[in-house]
Amino acid sequence: MKKYSGKPVGFGQVDLKDGFWHTQQELVREVTIDAVYDRFEETGRFEALKGEWKEGMPFKPHIFWDSDVTKWMEGAAYYLRKKPDAALEEKLDMLVERMEKLQTEDGYLNSYFTTVEPEARFTRRLDHELYCAGHLIEGALAYYAATGKRKMLDLTIRYIDLIDRIFRVEHSAAFDTPGHQEIEMALVKLYQFTGEIRYKELAEYFMDMRGCSPKDEENTGEDPVSFQSHLPVRKQKTAQGHAVRMLYQLCAMADLALLNQEEEMTEACETLFDNIVQRRMHITGGVGSTYLAEAFTFDYDLPELTTYNETCASIALAMFCRRMWLIEADRKYADCAELALYNTVLSGMSLSGDRFFYENPLAADPKRNQFNQSRKETIREHLPILERVKVFDCSCCPPNLVRTMGAIGDYMYSVSENTVYAHCYMDAEAKICLQEGEICLRQRTQYPYDGKIDLETGTAGDYTIALRIPGWCSSYRILVNGEPAVYTLEKGYACLRRVWQEKDHVVLDLAMPVELVEANPSVPNLCGRVAVMRGPITFCAEGIDNQALSLRDIRIRNASDFAVSMEEICGRKMPVLSGRASVRKEFEAFYRTYRGEEESVPWKLIPYFAWANRGVSEMNVWFLKA
Amino acid sequence: MKKYSGKPVGFGQVDLKDGFWHTQQELVREVTIDAVYDRFEETGRFEALKGEWKEGMPFKPHIFWDSDVTKWMEGAAYYLRKKPDAALEEKLDMLVERMEKLQTEDGYLNSYFTTVEPEARFTRRLDHELYCAGHLIEGALAYYAATGKRKMLDLTIRYIDLIDRIFRVEHSAAFDTPGHQEIEMALVKLYQFTGEIRYKELAEYFMDMRGCSPKDEENTGEDPVSFQSHLPVRKQKTAQGHAVRMLYQLCAMADLALLNQEEEMTEACETLFDNIVQRRMHITGGVGSTYLAEAFTFDYDLPELTTYNETCASIALAMFCRRMWLIEADRKYADCAELALYNTVLSGMSLSGDRFFYENPLAADPKRNQFNQSRKETIREHLPILERVKVFDCSCCPPNLVRTMGAIGDYMYSVSENTVYAHCYMDAEAKICLQEGEICLRQRTQYPYDGKIDLETGTAGDYTIALRIPGWCSSYRILVNGEPAVYTLEKGYACLRRVWQEKDHVVLDLAMPVELVEANPSVPNLCGRVAVMRGPITFCAEGIDNQALSLRDIRIRNASDFAVSMEEICGRKMPVLSGRASVRKEFEAFYRTYRGEEESVPWKLIPYFAWANRGVSEMNVWFLKA
Repeated sequence: MKKYSGKPVGFGQVDLKDGFWHTQQELVREVTIDAVYDRFEETGRFEALKGEWKEGMPFKPHIFWDSDVTKWMEGAAYYLRKKPDAALEEKLDMLVERMEKLQTEDGYLNSYFTTVEPEARFTRRLDHELYCAGHLIEGALAYYAATGKRKMLDLTIRYIDLIDRIFRVEHSAAFDTPGHQEIEMALVKLYQFTGEIRYKELAEYFMDMRGCSPKDEENTGEDPVSFQSHLPVRKQKTAQGHAVRMLYQLCAMADLALLNQEEEMTEACETLFDNIVQRRMHITGGVGSTYLAEAFTFDYDLPELTTYNETCASIALAMFCRRMWLIEADRKYADCAELALYNTVLSGMSLSGDRFFYENPLAADPKRNQFNQSRKETIREHLPILERVKVFDCSCCPPNLVRTMGAIGDYMYSVSENTVYAHCYMDAEAKICLQEGEICLRQRTQYPYDGKIDLETGTAGDYTIALRIPGWCSSYRILVNGEPAVYTLEKGYACLRRVWQEKDHVVLDLAMPVELVEANPSVPNLCGRVAVMRGPITFCAEGIDNQALSLRDIRIRNASDFAVSMEEICGRKMPVLSGRASVRKEFEAFYRTYRGEEESVPWKLIPYFAWANRGVSEMNVWFLKA
Repeated sequence: MKKYSGKPVGFGQVDLKDGFWHTQQELVREVTIDAVYDRFEETGRFEALKGEWKEGMPFKPHIFWDSDVTKWMEGAAYYLRKKPDAALEEKLDMLVERMEKLQTEDGYLNSYFTTVEPEARFTRRLDHELYCAGHLIEGALAYYAATGKRKMLDLTIRYIDLIDRIFRVEHSAAFDTPGHQEIEMALVKLYQFTGEIRYKELAEYFMDMRGCSPKDEENTGEDPVSFQSHLPVRKQKTAQGHAVRMLYQLCAMADLALLNQEEEMTEACETLFDNIVQRRMHITGGVGSTYLAEAFTFDYDLPELTTYNETCASIALAMFCRRMWLIEADRKYADCAELALYNTVLSGMSLSGDRFFYENPLAADPKRNQFNQSRKETIREHLPILERVKVFDCSCCPPNLVRTMGAIGDYMYSVSENTVYAHCYMDAEAKICLQEGEICLRQRTQYPYDGKIDLETGTAGDYTIALRIPGWCSSYRILVNGEPAVYTLEKGYACLRRVWQEKDHVVLDLAMPVELVEANPSVPNLCGRVAVMRGPITFCAEGIDNQALSLRDIRIRNASDFAVSMEEICGRKMPVLSGRASVRKEFEAFYRTYRGEEESVPWKLIPYFAWANRGVSEMNVWFLKA
């Protein structure tokens, strides 16, 4: 494809019909939306919007609460857009009413600062003010798209106009750029919706000033790396600091690179993408190896028990990938998006839809957590929790999951001129605008549980269908109407150009064997170990399925030792791997001369995303290679 | 041997002549004694004894400084006892002068409380007051033994008599037992020296009240486990809390068990010994797996990079073992003492003798430390340092090394009736009191670099020589005057009873091959890995000797693949292991389908105690087993 020629096909054009993501999306519709709403109601997040809090009252508003609310609104609106729901719409309307009353005369709109510290407006860079404003934009656009009601959008625009004046025109705030990136990509969306160039310029202003502002430095002190202010964004070569901030920044960088067709920005995006995916990402698509400042660390640092791997960071990684494939269709972006979505993002929520992980480690040792909990609080180490909870104090992940699942269709397609790119495979019907007009495509698939994708054209015409051949796939077949297809392979996409008839069938058959994956020898703790994957899904073993086995001692001989079967876990069917492996025979000695006495044992693996749904249990992803 | 019949043979009866410990002892005499003295002088520790500090002056005394001073005095006195040194004696005399002036009329003697907080005497259990008093006793006894001067002993006794009155008679302190155990074993020593039963009774009082005192609980709050006050000492079954405190407590428990021939106390000691050595000790004899409260953690928790393994804790472990073999001669105690002494204790000091480690990890990753140092202080993780330093704020380890090396001869022998037990082998001459009279023994050996020990009797008579056959040794030979010896094997000791003549030669030849050692499968991070040992010495690989190799990826096939040679490191000859091992061939991909492409590479291991003497370097102890 011609660089910078990509255009998104939004989830609005895509209707999931069946299969993996349909199930997941419906779970969120039926359970998660209300579950998150109820928790937010209970914790005062919606109450805060009334602007009535006073010292001494319960539920003191918090600096990031508004973003929780608008992120939930955004997600709820995505669902509403697809299917009317009067009760849900009423809740949204009610929240918009509260916002309208909360907004001050000059347009300012933030429940924390308005009620708790009105004098502190725009004085503290790290207090999430612009971050909340960004999520407000995204919520308003989604609400408008779902309901056609302009109220939230209008009050948002008033607020953004205030921000534009204060920051870009008057420079009268105590800092120049957001301490937590987000508003930049939201401003691009607002620009694209309104056509108002000022919003793009404000996004560019925030982006260009980052790492160049003495005011920012003074405002935030000695830790510029944590919020990516150590260098101008175009000079950043390695992913550093807070992972979600880094990746939200990259989303906006990619947005602006595309809009402006800017090579320097594009190169920075590519360099940072490669640094993340080739040096700093877990096999589950999890990123951010330390809880200390929720941050990226250094190349090849992939701790298993203690890695942070925030759910939001993997969501942001997928969002970044989706932007990158608009700049250039390279399968590496969709490979990465799928790794994140199918593993860490989904691990972020329970199979029941109402409980969440913030951190997503690659191993769990209940004995360690138990000991830690037994200690006085001041001498505990930080460890990821081992069971999902209903709400967090900092509850960004649950509503982020709602909006991601609501808009999961975003990940299916993009277009460039007369080519439609099929990135992530889902069972869905789509209407797609090509240069020459709209076409319909119907995908039928059980992907990622099965590698077969049946794509039916709904529209005749001369156009190209570009099918992603995932990086993990070493053998595949493409048939058009039962005959071997003619195609060219471009950066991992099989491009089928022909004059299509209605109801032509393209069948892509991706071989999806179980694979043993090794990490680069530079990753110290993964030496001697392999992960088990099938397609984009990373597998893990849990104690509950493998009682009396020391999971860390299991030695895998061959990938072919596994049998795949579909089994139900907590009411959800999913592939489970069964096989035999070796472990050392138990012995009493603490240390002894090595004997190499092993025995063969049966064992079982489940998809990583399904872990921790059946109580606290040991869990492991990387196993010894026999 | 009859239980409880053991008697120590102190280092005063033993003169090292050559070999491993002689070299080490002379290094401390020539370098370490002065190096520690100079650092203590520079940091105001000796100045504090003048009692002249006032608010606003530099070098504010610290609650544990007195213990640093008296521990150094104890060590220096051990050397002085063996060899006159006027300058050293002058320093000791000067310190005693200062103490004399510092002591208040009622006998109180503590530089911190006297000058900084006189009103806070005996009010804060965790402030090391009794700990300092304990080290004062040990210093005073050592000084007296070396110089025959009673001054320090007399003022110590005045102070201890005050403590006895306050704590045991009047119960007028704000707590009942020491927050940091130490004084208990010192009181036993004082009792043994003076014959004054009150001192033993005070030790017993402290021991019996521990874990039973509401006053202690009130004084120290919610964390009784950290200082072993969660249970009466006889009920403690697992090693918990601060490692040095735990082990100093065990030393006193063993002392009292022996003195009182008390079964319940003995069983508690045995249970705790087994818990430590069979569940919570590194292959280097290091204990205390977490820096958080410098503590024991839980069974099978042996982190490599982050373990604490304080030098003092391994010294204390050896001290405990030495007491246990008086209760009952079982080789497991000397096995453990050697593991601690030859590995973690010695790792605690540089080959140059003037730099020290407090923490002794089993792996070092300079990239991790470098990244960590690059971060803002508030978001750093705690990591062991990778190069030894000259002094610590809390500098207990350096003077503890001085006294341990000065008294290393303590670890050679013990007696029981007419049997002399040879525990740790050293090249030395000894005078040993048996029931039937004094005998002389001369050991000649290059142990632990060579397994041959030649023992020459200097005294004729009917007695038993019991030679420890180390647990690591699976093949050995014993000759008496060139003929196979007749002996019985009792708990790992080959007991040779005969009517000895002067100049009889017993030759014990311990086969000392390189061994690969595996840890119990319950240790998660050591699964799939082996350590390399030869005799009691644990080996490690350092980056500096193995450039361009990923140490964590090295796979060892057989112990017989190693060649042993004596090489010089920093001027010290020691055994070095060379061999070939496999590593994965380098590849660029971050993740890929497992290929198993390995190549054979030459590599080299050095004794663990010698690591980190040639600059910052990667280090590893546990290697993959091919």
